[in-house]
Amino acid sequence: MSEQTLTVSTEGVTSPQGFLAGAVSAGIRSDGRADLALLYSERPCSAASLFTASTLKAAPVMLSQRHLADGGAQAVIVNSGCANAYVGDQGREDAEEMARLAASKLRLAVSDVVVASTGVTGHLMPMEKIRAALPTIALDRGGGEQFARAIMTTDSVPKQASVAFSVGEREYRVGGCAKGAGMIHPNLATMLAFLTTDASAESAFLQQTLREAVAVSFNMISVDGDTSPSDTLLIMANGAAGGPMIGEGDEGAPLFREAVETVCVALAKGLARDAEGATKLIEVEVEGALTLTDARAAARTVAGSSLVKSAVYGNDPNWGRVLAAVARSGATAKEETVSLFWQGLCVFERGRPVPYDKDALRAATNEPEVRIRVDLGIGEARAVAWGCDLTEEYVRINAEYTT
Amino acid sequence: MSEQTLTVSTEGVTSPQGFLAGAVSAGIRSDGRADLALLYSERPCSAASLFTASTLKAAPVMLSQRHLADGGAQAVIVNSGCANAYVGDQGREDAEEMARLAASKLRLAVSDVVVASTGVTGHLMPMEKIRAALPTIALDRGGGEQFARAIMTTDSVPKQASVAFSVGEREYRVGGCAKGAGMIHPNLATMLAFLTTDASAESAFLQQTLREAVAVSFNMISVDGDTSPSDTLLIMANGAAGGPMIGEGDEGAPLFREAVETVCVALAKGLARDAEGATKLIEVEVEGALTLTDARAAARTVAGSSLVKSAVYGNDPNWGRVLAAVARSGATAKEETVSLFWQGLCVFERGRPVPYDKDALRAATNEPEVRIRVDLGIGEARAVAWGCDLTEEYVRINAEYTT
Repeated sequence: MSEQTLTVSTEGVTSPQGFLAGAVSAGIRSDGRADLALLYSERPCSAASLFTASTLKAAPVMLSQRHLADGGAQAVIVNSGCANAYVGDQGREDAEEMARLAASKLRLAVSDVVVASTGVTGHLMPMEKIRAALPTIALDRGGGEQFARAIMTTDSVPKQASVAFSVGEREYRVGGCAKGAGMIHPNLATMLAFLTTDASAESAFLQQTLREAVAVSFNMISVDGDTSPSDTLLIMANGAAGGPMIGEGDEGAPLFREAVETVCVALAKGLARDAEGATKLIEVEVEGALTLTDARAAARTVAGSSLVKSAVYGNDPNWGRVLAAVARSGATAKEETVSLFWQGLCVFERGRPVPYDKDALRAATNEPEVRIRVDLGIGEARAVAWGCDLTEEYVRINAEYTT
Repeated sequence: MSEQTLTVSTEGVTSPQGFLAGAVSAGIRSDGRADLALLYSERPCSAASLFTASTLKAAPVMLSQRHLADGGAQAVIVNSGCANAYVGDQGREDAEEMARLAASKLRLAVSDVVVASTGVTGHLMPMEKIRAALPTIALDRGGGEQFARAIMTTDSVPKQASVAFSVGEREYRVGGCAKGAGMIHPNLATMLAFLTTDASAESAFLQQTLREAVAVSFNMISVDGDTSPSDTLLIMANGAAGGPMIGEGDEGAPLFREAVETVCVALAKGLARDAEGATKLIEVEVEGALTLTDARAAARTVAGSSLVKSAVYGNDPNWGRVLAAVARSGATAKEETVSLFWQGLCVFERGRPVPYDKDALRAATNEPEVRIRVDLGIGEARAVAWGCDLTEEYVRINAEYTT
């Protein structure tokens, strides 16, 4: 598709030109960390978005969906510590006030502001703290990391990624950051992700690009099978790098797609790796499936299986649990054509267990990344999913933390 | 429907007349516990069954499906310690030999024997041990508990239930036992359940009765979302109590249905309560749903949510996680009509949080049974699901135990 190799760097949303960001500690969180963050583009942006599949959406999600209906946005105000979910009419009023406060500070139309909130549900937003703190946020060209840190909840590290690519003489950038350490599962679970680019892109093309990138990244990770009312994924394209508007079929389109996908995959893997209590990233590759739907379902089911996750935590190459997960995924499978590889070693070949050195494989499993590959042997489709191990620490965090 | 109250007792498969059972330690398990069990009816039975939804089924499941195709059976041979799954042709031959050995001992046709195996996958059945031990099993009228104990894997207690009911002057019994402490989830996960009755029932009616009972019992429990290749649920009706054959529309049909459902619900709750590492049974009732499908999906999703399960373990009345699970279940829901009760206390009423005494509710949650009730407020449909809390012990068991 392209001869350019896209190298991922860990700069975030302010890596592309024309984006500023900043954050303050408004006191929404009790630990004193920064919890209110603002992202701003110097120019109007075309924007595309995906939101939680939950039928009970948090107030900021409903507001942002309305504000993004025209395909444009210029700023995002985000807080951690309070999700502003399940609190009725007052929640809707508070989300609107957050948008108004940001619009007023930035001299924008209210409908150009996107709002996102993450944290405990069922609690009213402490609006007096937001009113006091929001106007004091200092925006900066290098504020991406501050922004990425302020949106964290139980995340242990900020997740940022960016890539650069060239079309002709012109260089473009795509940057992004994400948060979400629990409740992560296909269909956007408690996850916030914000992407920026200084390319200029048509709104419909941007939406299609985002949808395709999410299908192979955020929708292929699983932490615990839960979904939050607040999931938000946004991309803003401000055109600050110059050059023509990119649309379907244009010269820059394939590279732009690749860049967005690369940033999304890097952020998604970062989320799985930093999941609550996790000690290992699990990469599950399913190939030889009859259909892409089958490959994706099988890969996600294995990555999301509590038994597989527990086995990986215990350094136990328990491949029977992988086959059991494949077999309940709904993917077409025949025992006599299935082969299975654990950390690169074939343990099951076309329907038969392959003897292996248990101690050696246990030792090979005791690594920060565990790779499981299943060849269904009946087709050409392939998919990759990511998950993490299930640990006693996950249980401790979620038994004690009120989300 | 009936004026008889069905009282559940803890007798098992030998509670109905004409059934004998027994077990021995064949040495398949390394801990020396009984691991090979036989159930036998003195008369031929009509039989109905349900098996794992997994696309890669264990050898004994495939064999039993063939043997039950004629709607009849007279004996069941079951082992724990080895699932005889994912081992290719040899597994199929071994399952057939187990059926032949039991048939030879009992002087039955091979096709009247059902075979079930549970335990580690990917290992060949130690047939020399089976050959030596199977003929030594002593059958007994009181052997139900021995049978129930021998089919256990990580279960901590045997699960048995029986009820009696009368039609006219005649008394009938339905008894059963079940095992399965991990991998339990809707659509029959690693679960074996055997029911017996001394009523005489038409095969098609028996199948329909079993299917309906499973829909409100075994399919409404969730431990960890995994499904095994070995799940087997069987009911055998031998007619030893005399009286007419029961079929759809007959006098005894409603009570017979109720009896089978009562035994299935008691066994299913027993499975959830004894799940790996669990300290609490969670009962989730969803009412006011638009459709039965919605009610069941919502109840199961809440009961299966890792976050809800962790919260219950931590005595944290975290009702926001319950709403999040309802909202991702696919059930139609509107925030403004939803109400939520935690241990009987209303914490969310028609879209608004209700203030409550946190310490008192935490204390009320510190009980062996936690009841969560959700009223969707938009329809008439209702369903109940059962689950268990998620504990550090679950992770330890599954990180260390090779299934």
